[in-house]
Amino acid sequence: MSLDSQILRALRSTEASVSGADLSHRLGISRAAVWARIEEMRRLGYDISASPHLGYKLVSVPDVLHPDELRSRLPESVIIGREIHVYQETTSTNDVVEKFARDGVREGVVVFAESQTKGRGRLGRKWLSPSGKGLWFSILLRPQLRPQCATQLTIAAGTAIRRAISIHTGIEPEIKWPNDILIKKKKVAGILTELNAELDGIRYLILGIGVDVNQSHEDFPPDIRPIATSLSVETKRPILRAELACQLLTELNVEYQKIASKQFHTVAQEWQENCSTLSQQVSIRMGERCVKGVAEALDEDGALLLRTEHGHLERIIGGDVTMEKR
Amino acid sequence: MSLDSQILRALRSTEASVSGADLSHRLGISRAAVWARIEEMRRLGYDISASPHLGYKLVSVPDVLHPDELRSRLPESVIIGREIHVYQETTSTNDVVEKFARDGVREGVVVFAESQTKGRGRLGRKWLSPSGKGLWFSILLRPQLRPQCATQLTIAAGTAIRRAISIHTGIEPEIKWPNDILIKKKKVAGILTELNAELDGIRYLILGIGVDVNQSHEDFPPDIRPIATSLSVETKRPILRAELACQLLTELNVEYQKIASKQFHTVAQEWQENCSTLSQQVSIRMGERCVKGVAEALDEDGALLLRTEHGHLERIIGGDVTMEKR
Repeated sequence: MSLDSQILRALRSTEASVSGADLSHRLGISRAAVWARIEEMRRLGYDISASPHLGYKLVSVPDVLHPDELRSRLPESVIIGREIHVYQETTSTNDVVEKFARDGVREGVVVFAESQTKGRGRLGRKWLSPSGKGLWFSILLRPQLRPQCATQLTIAAGTAIRRAISIHTGIEPEIKWPNDILIKKKKVAGILTELNAELDGIRYLILGIGVDVNQSHEDFPPDIRPIATSLSVETKRPILRAELACQLLTELNVEYQKIASKQFHTVAQEWQENCSTLSQQVSIRMGERCVKGVAEALDEDGALLLRTEHGHLERIIGGDVTMEKR
Repeated sequence: MSLDSQILRALRSTEASVSGADLSHRLGISRAAVWARIEEMRRLGYDISASPHLGYKLVSVPDVLHPDELRSRLPESVIIGREIHVYQETTSTNDVVEKFARDGVREGVVVFAESQTKGRGRLGRKWLSPSGKGLWFSILLRPQLRPQCATQLTIAAGTAIRRAISIHTGIEPEIKWPNDILIKKKKVAGILTELNAELDGIRYLILGIGVDVNQSHEDFPPDIRPIATSLSVETKRPILRAELACQLLTELNVEYQKIASKQFHTVAQEWQENCSTLSQQVSIRMGERCVKGVAEALDEDGALLLRTEHGHLERIIGGDVTMEKR
């Protein structure tokens, strides 16, 4: 963890001030060096008061995505977020993480971008990522799972994102299988799961996550306005992205821990309680093929079990869901 | 197709000689240019006779892997082998093909290497690839399949490799699920399937294939001699690698065409007729877990259906099979 992360963590750990001597001792650097770091953080927008007798106190933080800021808000022991990078602009955060993966970087690294020039969704679809308006990030995972269990991670991410939004805003979003988070039937977040595997096991898996945070209704292009929304549109207030980002990473760690300890059924349980697709008459398009039926449940791999028109149960891995009018 | 491929194809198309004028006309180059190419091919080891009145005739070809030679032996319309590269040495042909895949190269490209410094098998195991002794090659495919159907391609490759060896040598190898080709219980070829996917579909899939061709018994390290063999050991004669390579690519095209036209059941049928794993009492180790039972059949995705000791049917995607003594 960087010095700045450690200083921020120390300042956050108490309501009182923290003396320069204390910080100097904890970090193993001189008091002058502590002062220099504090000055640098002030330039980044942190309001840190300094009193000759009491020491330093964190008054307010800027709503910027900064690796040290994000890292200092997470427990030291996390897997997801143990290493955080923030890019001002990139093609797609998944591309950056894939490069890390190929270079052998260990799991848990998270890459945020303020904007993406080629943000993508499922099936090569475009994902709009306007600068500073949302959270666009990707996570490198190396789960010990066979490739057909990859859906478990999408389900876990959906559960985590839904819960983080609920905790942070008080709104209860719904999950639409397989990868969308909706508020009042409008999409507010999505997940793109990409994997590299041999048949015996996943080598690495990348969760790409996009959350529409501070867009106004008008920020969305006219054609997607009827089907898209943002958290600030729904809450009618601006959202602090750094805080929400940490809530997301926290919940993602919780769910990933469950997958790692073979507790997928508990993930699936919460997911199913919040899924708008279940018990509904749906049609699912998979490439050229289209099946209709009632979505009944998730199976142990995270696939959707669909009771088809013909009465038999079909396992569905991916596809586009449309709710049928009844 | 290169000029050399076209010249070789023309010379192979007839038992008679082909005149320089004819070649010049067919290829749209001067007779002097035809002569220059023929000279170059002779330097590569081709024995091409030239008669002033009759023209050129292919007498014999060297047993080297050469892209033009291989390409000229395959039909123009093939998918697998439409583009062929031969490296003297590389880390792993899968690595080379993966780079092609990421650069957007279309499916069907095949990369051979005379030797691999980091040849690999399943689960990161080492694959020995001594120079000039075998066929080590990788194929880039972009099948329109969901990732859990990837096993279909391993099954198709196994069927094709078994048949190519059978046609070329007269020996009838057995297939051991999921990816080994055996002669008299000893491994002679293997397949490593690597894929890059999102949940909705495979982006690309790489079939890495290794065939032990001209090793002597002593060429294998002592520890694997009891379980490995080569085609020349079994047939007691040297094998022409270029001819075998083309037979392999031909059969791989046949099987891939079946997968592409949704005829996996016909692939599975031939596979099952030649599989030593079926109807046997086996134990299958998958990471930490081990299941025992009788291998009954392949399912529609290419997974192995195992009737466990407890009587229920389990779908197995990957693992190490051991035949149980009964």
